[in-house]
Amino acid sequence: MAKRLVIVGGGAAGMSAASAARRVDPDLDVVVLEAGSHAAYGLCGLPYFLANVVPEIDSLRAYPPEYFREARGIDLRFEADVLRLDPARQEVHFQSGDGLDVLTYDKLVLACGATPALPPVPGIDDDHVFTIRRVDESSRLRALLDAGHVGRATVVGAGYIGLEIAEALSSRGVEVTVVEALPRVMSNLDDVIAERVEAEVRRHVEVRLGTRLRALTRQETGIDVDLDGSTPVVADVVVIATGVRPGSALGATAGAATGPHGALMVDASMRTSIPNVYAAGDCVNVNHIVTGRPTFVPLGPAANKTGRVAGTVAAGGAAYFPGVVGTAVVKVFELSVGRTGLTLDEALAEGFDAHATDAVGRSRAKYYPRSAAVHVRLVHTVDGHLLGGQMVGTGDDVAKRIDVLAVSLHAGLGVSDLADLDLSYAPPFAPVYEPVQLAAFAARPSVRSAS
Amino acid sequence: MAKRLVIVGGGAAGMSAASAARRVDPDLDVVVLEAGSHAAYGLCGLPYFLANVVPEIDSLRAYPPEYFREARGIDLRFEADVLRLDPARQEVHFQSGDGLDVLTYDKLVLACGATPALPPVPGIDDDHVFTIRRVDESSRLRALLDAGHVGRATVVGAGYIGLEIAEALSSRGVEVTVVEALPRVMSNLDDVIAERVEAEVRRHVEVRLGTRLRALTRQETGIDVDLDGSTPVVADVVVIATGVRPGSALGATAGAATGPHGALMVDASMRTSIPNVYAAGDCVNVNHIVTGRPTFVPLGPAANKTGRVAGTVAAGGAAYFPGVVGTAVVKVFELSVGRTGLTLDEALAEGFDAHATDAVGRSRAKYYPRSAAVHVRLVHTVDGHLLGGQMVGTGDDVAKRIDVLAVSLHAGLGVSDLADLDLSYAPPFAPVYEPVQLAAFAARPSVRSAS
Repeated sequence: MAKRLVIVGGGAAGMSAASAARRVDPDLDVVVLEAGSHAAYGLCGLPYFLANVVPEIDSLRAYPPEYFREARGIDLRFEADVLRLDPARQEVHFQSGDGLDVLTYDKLVLACGATPALPPVPGIDDDHVFTIRRVDESSRLRALLDAGHVGRATVVGAGYIGLEIAEALSSRGVEVTVVEALPRVMSNLDDVIAERVEAEVRRHVEVRLGTRLRALTRQETGIDVDLDGSTPVVADVVVIATGVRPGSALGATAGAATGPHGALMVDASMRTSIPNVYAAGDCVNVNHIVTGRPTFVPLGPAANKTGRVAGTVAAGGAAYFPGVVGTAVVKVFELSVGRTGLTLDEALAEGFDAHATDAVGRSRAKYYPRSAAVHVRLVHTVDGHLLGGQMVGTGDDVAKRIDVLAVSLHAGLGVSDLADLDLSYAPPFAPVYEPVQLAAFAARPSVRSAS
Repeated sequence: MAKRLVIVGGGAAGMSAASAARRVDPDLDVVVLEAGSHAAYGLCGLPYFLANVVPEIDSLRAYPPEYFREARGIDLRFEADVLRLDPARQEVHFQSGDGLDVLTYDKLVLACGATPALPPVPGIDDDHVFTIRRVDESSRLRALLDAGHVGRATVVGAGYIGLEIAEALSSRGVEVTVVEALPRVMSNLDDVIAERVEAEVRRHVEVRLGTRLRALTRQETGIDVDLDGSTPVVADVVVIATGVRPGSALGATAGAATGPHGALMVDASMRTSIPNVYAAGDCVNVNHIVTGRPTFVPLGPAANKTGRVAGTVAAGGAAYFPGVVGTAVVKVFELSVGRTGLTLDEALAEGFDAHATDAVGRSRAKYYPRSAAVHVRLVHTVDGHLLGGQMVGTGDDVAKRIDVLAVSLHAGLGVSDLADLDLSYAPPFAPVYEPVQLAAFAARPSVRSAS
């Protein structure tokens, strides 16, 4: 009789796990239980759907459900809301259209994703208060935008998702106010980089920093957004983008060990502390290669990769996930901003004797059209051990440049190595010295001792 | 009395050496002897000057001569043509405006660059036959273009310089024929990639492969371009782009050891085999990190870096150049094409048990505007040792992506490591799996054994 792999969650991690398991073992019974009625959507694309840069929501799907069911033979079930695990009996108990149901498993993958961390304020459940994390909710907001019902919006949270949403709404002609409890935008960047981002955001929308949401009150004319330390705003819609919490409750309640941020702890093969139970995606902590410690980084690439590893291993294959280095990139209006490794703030908090070296280079040969400034910050120890980097530039100039630093962190290269790298050069694409190399020249110990 | 550093050549390597030496030792007497009357020009920009993408030739200068002389205190002399070295007496003998002259040196840096390898055919010295390697010659061709005197051009050589020039001339409305002795364009790429490039070139200009230049004959109506194995062409101008030879004669005649292609042999600190004589730039061989052997790669980044190392060491500092991995990128009309490490052909010729794995990914999330195909070829051993990579795509999509492979080669990462890299992702800039990772999944040994 075929063994059964049950996967809880039909997001990127869950569907990656299902597909990987199918590749390893074509005879395996692979069941995906998804609480909603959508699978394999690229949630990172939702801001671009709001902006109408992506006209149709279904464009965000990796594959349609029929493809998983028919071409890949995956038993993908919608509206199947898992309520409880019984690890001793290897059972999942779930609510489906037919009432309560039970499935036994040989192997289980928890890919429950993450849920928005909502501020506990009055009015947060108003139906014009949104989080852009789900397909149905995003479709509802998009319909309001398309119908011309959104003139004013307040976005709570100035992290990268909040700024993507602010840009999307602004591009639809909405008057946007961004509200952030911290004293700066993008607190996962160092000040000097975040200030560049803040200036760009202020060119397009209103920004209120150090301001906490107190209450939302429905009025005739809209929603009164009551703020701590700032005058109230009136908005037609409010979008909450104050981060996410790992969907670890199902596993934790069944006894799985959790770590930072309450996310599930897994080994490099995505095993939880419960036998035959794996976990992947935004509900787990992964290894941070720079610190060597578990970290909660709910981003798409790790969700896909950990899902693939969990599915491979659960199906009897061998795979492991070495971890992340904390790479992220975001488009903020005309700017692009990237980071990898640790910021200076993070490195100091981790106890490193860390320093930052900044340099401004060019994206192309200085004489070539569209050559623009690229600001690089390297974070490193005084003896040239690389800890991280940040970059800010225009257009497409940053996203793939930060990858040079990401690979360097994976490989343990030092600041001196960066200066020597044989990176691609041609006047239309790059200057003879990449911006990251100018920063490396300034940072490397040998130059310091020679000067 | 101040010690004297003499540098032969005012190109990228020579001026990098001069500036680096000045930083290390502010009291050093730094003399640069340049045969022409230009210094520190970015020769890679010449095709864009022809195309009028760069209107003024002086935009290609890193700095004007006065800057080197006044701000950096470098004795930069033009029209100073070095004829002979006397290593025993530490003298350079040169022709200057005043006749023959002699300078003694404490340290000498040879940065003589490279010269075009001209086919030995009749008519090659016609004044409408150009090589795009020098400022004055390029200015003369540009003036002919600006005056509308160039309707038809033949470009001999379909390497990256030949194709850049073909594109530049075509963009000026010139009817271009590209002639190449080898059976394909860009013989430094594998067939599968070169064919994509060839198709793009053929969309814009005529291409004749496997066709050797036999003679150039001046007629009333233009230059008759006589070809082996192809009908003749008539052209108003002919541009020769059949590669370069290292300018190693000065050093070699004085007894400096040479290696592949006749280029000067240097150690990692740019020392030649003659005491107190260093060399840098397009006249030297450098270490190829993948093969561990000396290689002749006359490209801008290595010229700048080796110049910097030679100048630093000659002035008493410590520096070394670990070598290159063979990275190059070029814009060819709408395409961009990059390479690093070894091609499959090169790897097999080097004796590696090499394989190639091809994959086609996307430049951005598939639903995001301007998402386009990126073809990646990985070259690797069967057990996953990375030897090189090639990429072809549109616009800016390739140049900085090839750097991921370049860094991986520097660091000795394997194919399996590539699949695990935490590379930047955001829908406007990248898909969740980079094209290089799709190729890595297909190539890595663990997947092979599992399937």
